[in-house]
Amino acid sequence: MDIQAYMQAVGRQARAASRAMARASTGAKNAALNAIADAIERDAARLLAANQQDMEQARADGLEPAMLDRLQLTEKTIATMAQGLREMVALPDPIGNMGDFKYRPSGIQVGKMRVPLGVIGIIYEARPNVTADAAGLCIKSGNATILRGGREAFHCNQAIAACVKEGLSKAGLPEAAVQIIETPDRAAVGELITMSEFVDVIVPRGGKGLIERISRDARVPVIKHLDGICHVYIDDEADPEKAIRIADNAKTHRYGTCNTMETLLVNDNVAELILPELAKVYAAKQVELRGCDKTRAILPSIVAATDADWATEYLAPILAVKVVADLDEAIAHINQWGSHHTDAIITENYTKARQFLREVDSASVMVNASTRFADGFEYGLGAEIGISTDKIHARGPVGLEGLTSEKWIVLGDGEIRS
Amino acid sequence: MDIQAYMQAVGRQARAASRAMARASTGAKNAALNAIADAIERDAARLLAANQQDMEQARADGLEPAMLDRLQLTEKTIATMAQGLREMVALPDPIGNMGDFKYRPSGIQVGKMRVPLGVIGIIYEARPNVTADAAGLCIKSGNATILRGGREAFHCNQAIAACVKEGLSKAGLPEAAVQIIETPDRAAVGELITMSEFVDVIVPRGGKGLIERISRDARVPVIKHLDGICHVYIDDEADPEKAIRIADNAKTHRYGTCNTMETLLVNDNVAELILPELAKVYAAKQVELRGCDKTRAILPSIVAATDADWATEYLAPILAVKVVADLDEAIAHINQWGSHHTDAIITENYTKARQFLREVDSASVMVNASTRFADGFEYGLGAEIGISTDKIHARGPVGLEGLTSEKWIVLGDGEIRS
Repeated sequence: MDIQAYMQAVGRQARAASRAMARASTGAKNAALNAIADAIERDAARLLAANQQDMEQARADGLEPAMLDRLQLTEKTIATMAQGLREMVALPDPIGNMGDFKYRPSGIQVGKMRVPLGVIGIIYEARPNVTADAAGLCIKSGNATILRGGREAFHCNQAIAACVKEGLSKAGLPEAAVQIIETPDRAAVGELITMSEFVDVIVPRGGKGLIERISRDARVPVIKHLDGICHVYIDDEADPEKAIRIADNAKTHRYGTCNTMETLLVNDNVAELILPELAKVYAAKQVELRGCDKTRAILPSIVAATDADWATEYLAPILAVKVVADLDEAIAHINQWGSHHTDAIITENYTKARQFLREVDSASVMVNASTRFADGFEYGLGAEIGISTDKIHARGPVGLEGLTSEKWIVLGDGEIRS
Repeated sequence: MDIQAYMQAVGRQARAASRAMARASTGAKNAALNAIADAIERDAARLLAANQQDMEQARADGLEPAMLDRLQLTEKTIATMAQGLREMVALPDPIGNMGDFKYRPSGIQVGKMRVPLGVIGIIYEARPNVTADAAGLCIKSGNATILRGGREAFHCNQAIAACVKEGLSKAGLPEAAVQIIETPDRAAVGELITMSEFVDVIVPRGGKGLIERISRDARVPVIKHLDGICHVYIDDEADPEKAIRIADNAKTHRYGTCNTMETLLVNDNVAELILPELAKVYAAKQVELRGCDKTRAILPSIVAATDADWATEYLAPILAVKVVADLDEAIAHINQWGSHHTDAIITENYTKARQFLREVDSASVMVNASTRFADGFEYGLGAEIGISTDKIHARGPVGLEGLTSEKWIVLGDGEIRS
């Protein structure tokens, strides 16, 4: 197989399909989503069988249990997939939204219209549910998409793809609007991320290694998610009850998520009050604490934190703890050591809350709320394609709007430039 | 000189300065802009002398007249520079704008805040006015900037930089908020576009070769402007007077600008009516026409257009002309051959205007107006850092807002995720 020729053909078809998708009506896109959901529900047994084939191969290849877990389809996950698509039907269609029209002195009227990005390449690991999710989000946002899932999910991805094509076709939309790369050859990824004439943006979903590699080699813009080194800062004017509740939830609600707190900052004035209380909470949940010198003066039994701890996304029941002199030191620590993902202050002080919101340079900045809320569903986006730690285009949870852009619209009456 | 070490130091200082700029008040930023304008006016003689030095060297080096023209400062261009900065004072400060706050079922209230991008690297040719413009836009938008101007403008750029530093300092802002790279070594550009820990976005301004080179080698996101292959489509329901006025203006108002029409599309039904009229207008201005077969059947004396013509940005008194059967063919031609910059339809038909606006995939899409309006000032942005032909982040004229991003703000009352 000539990978380059194959990918060029995929790209060309995607570009052509993207034109049809850009002008597709809201009704047609919704009809496709419903038809795909119907097909997935109807073909549940076929999807499970295909998945079984993938699981057997994956077990034989010695895949890790966590990866097997993500690869596994069940009747419940299949129902969730279909439901996710139906929920996208209910989301407002962002495409074609117009606004901000203003008359200019020349007589022209200038405004903006929301439009799809065009062709979106999505590279992800062996998680078959992403196939349905990503296809649905791209359809609803009027984009064409080229999907490259982990090859361990090959058979069930093909089975899902058949449902997607059926749904598109039933709605009168081009089947090539969603294409799944059919070769396990890694060279296909290399082509996908460099064919800028056919692909407008790449969204990698997966481990940090995958994302770093793709960002390094891509010649197409990448919407990426790297580390989530999130902080909670407990101010000396914090309500202690809220502080403990949030510091507990932000760390222990789930350990492996990107919006989990990895470093706790505590104001010096309240450290002796708060830290022993919190230490009990964490001890009960077997969370290992690693502290700065001041923290260890209060909690002598814990391990000393080094600079490496401030820069680590543990994704585990481990928490770095630092006592800071004031808000300025907390903000400076977060901006220096954090990953610009999600950070929260706990305070009752209006002025300090305002300063924290303005000066912390992160995609999500919070007052008196758990960092675990940084999520497309919690923010009301309906669904998310990922969480961006980039600064341009989209920051934080990326929903339908992150898969769109705005073009300028000029309405005239024969005006010329003088 | 160790270029890498030098650029790392520049980057580190820019990053530190960007924190101060992000929290700078509107008043301080405006004070800096006014103080820079004052210093430029006061130092006009010194700027002219520095420019004289650059001009002599450039002439000795045999620079082309067009480049000498752009390098030249006069009392008038210096006054325009200062005035440009004062006009930025009058623009609304985009930073800190908050909105879209909504309560979510969990109890948190989620909204967005506009924030600076951080550190912006701007690479441009020997045009000293860009130094003042770019510095001003970055200051107003709360960013730090690293400027790399053409080395032919070395002395006057240094003189302008002194004024900028004086103005920043008078306003209590860090001088490192605007740094001009002091070495002519090209390796400095290589460092600038790859040090992603210190630079958030690169804006190249210059010829296509420069921009392609930078885009290829950059490891930092680039807001770029490539071709401007703009179209005017004259529909069969066009008002002939508007059609001729706009087709004339879009081509002949200025030949060397990116928003100049390069291909004219005419509906078959009106080609015999419109083309001879237009041919007279263009002949009077020595515009060379290159036509498709149908065009040449009407205007037999003109040269035949080849596919290369549909893909060429002439930047010269040359115009490609194609007769199309209908709106669909016009849109397909524009989306295939154009550069997604600026395209206009001339029609009195509501439905066709609407279809053109929706389906043409360009940064600016116009009805009954000259493509020459695609410009930051004409759109009311106040000033522009460039025109983007990219699809993500910012499309078309990029003003202050294009140098910013939005972060998520979460206001809570002790909420945790369940």
